[in-house]
Amino acid sequence: MTDQHKSSGPCEGLAKLQQALKKNRRDAHHRYFQLATVAADGTPRNRTVVFRGFAPQEDGLLVITDTRSEKMTELSAPCRAEVAWYFTHTREQFRLRVRVNAITPDEQDAGLLALRKRVWTGLSDAAREQFFWRSPGSPLGEGERPAAGTGLPGTFAVLVLRPDYIDHLVLAKVQTRHLSRFDHGHWHEQSLNP
Amino acid sequence: MTDQHKSSGPCEGLAKLQQALKKNRRDAHHRYFQLATVAADGTPRNRTVVFRGFAPQEDGLLVITDTRSEKMTELSAPCRAEVAWYFTHTREQFRLRVRVNAITPDEQDAGLLALRKRVWTGLSDAAREQFFWRSPGSPLGEGERPAAGTGLPGTFAVLVLRPDYIDHLVLAKVQTRHLSRFDHGHWHEQSLNP
Repeated sequence: MTDQHKSSGPCEGLAKLQQALKKNRRDAHHRYFQLATVAADGTPRNRTVVFRGFAPQEDGLLVITDTRSEKMTELSAPCRAEVAWYFTHTREQFRLRVRVNAITPDEQDAGLLALRKRVWTGLSDAAREQFFWRSPGSPLGEGERPAAGTGLPGTFAVLVLRPDYIDHLVLAKVQTRHLSRFDHGHWHEQSLNP
Repeated sequence: MTDQHKSSGPCEGLAKLQQALKKNRRDAHHRYFQLATVAADGTPRNRTVVFRGFAPQEDGLLVITDTRSEKMTELSAPCRAEVAWYFTHTREQFRLRVRVNAITPDEQDAGLLALRKRVWTGLSDAAREQFFWRSPGSPLGEGERPAAGTGLPGTFAVLVLRPDYIDHLVLAKVQTRHLSRFDHGHWHEQSLNP
């Protein structure tokens, strides 16, 4: 017996993710997740990033990055990535397959540039400071320094991650697993064996 | 000024990882990390797995998997993966590029089969039980059931992850980043800009 149905509204996976964000607020690390990409040589890359909120009127997740980072090289063209987000308090995992778009200073769309500015404005001083450091990942003390300036640094980019596949696993005493999959303009909902 | 040197012993990254495991023992989730692979279609996959200890006399990390899982399909041949392991208490991240080998019931090497058995013996009843469930990821209530038996189930496999590149980032007030890279029979150690 399968429990499958279609929906044109927001999907169950994202609704559950929003609930998990609330339920896990007590943990400082609840906004950290792992983002997997594929490098130019075809091997996988994985790193912890900080969730910076949802894109307005879209189901996109926002993260920030330095345009000089390896992550940026792997994500410079629109591409696919996978999020693994484990909430330690409620013991549940979300795996989101996403399309990634980067908003850099070269962006032409005024709405996206405004979004980049809004995310920058919301950052702590400590988070901002890093965009004025030497190139991340270069040998210590070497690497380019970004040009000083009073506005948004050219090293600052926002990544928009738009999910089309959300696999939600709950590790309670009775384990459950649910899949939300976007296809042909609809979210398809299905319960899976854990 | 770079701080680079060679070593033929165990690397600094693994020594730091062992320290982090001790320092974060208070957290039930300190043994959870995220493992990124590449699917047959070239897109990345990412999931949370549980660290099951180190391989004896080797620097390999052990995790377990179900031979019927998608993870197993992606890792059936020796291949590359990347671990992202964030320790929430000490606020440090390890990224390990690894070669993966799976130990399945078809394994011919007696030492590796003994390791598979040892890992099985160390599991909790709850962890063992899952290998007797229907196929993970199949629609709820469908999917094959493994054959019942008293010995190790044929669905049980151990993955050995051998790192050759460890990027250790500490998010303390003063951030530090250190790279251990195995090349030509030696570990090369270097401090990087965070």
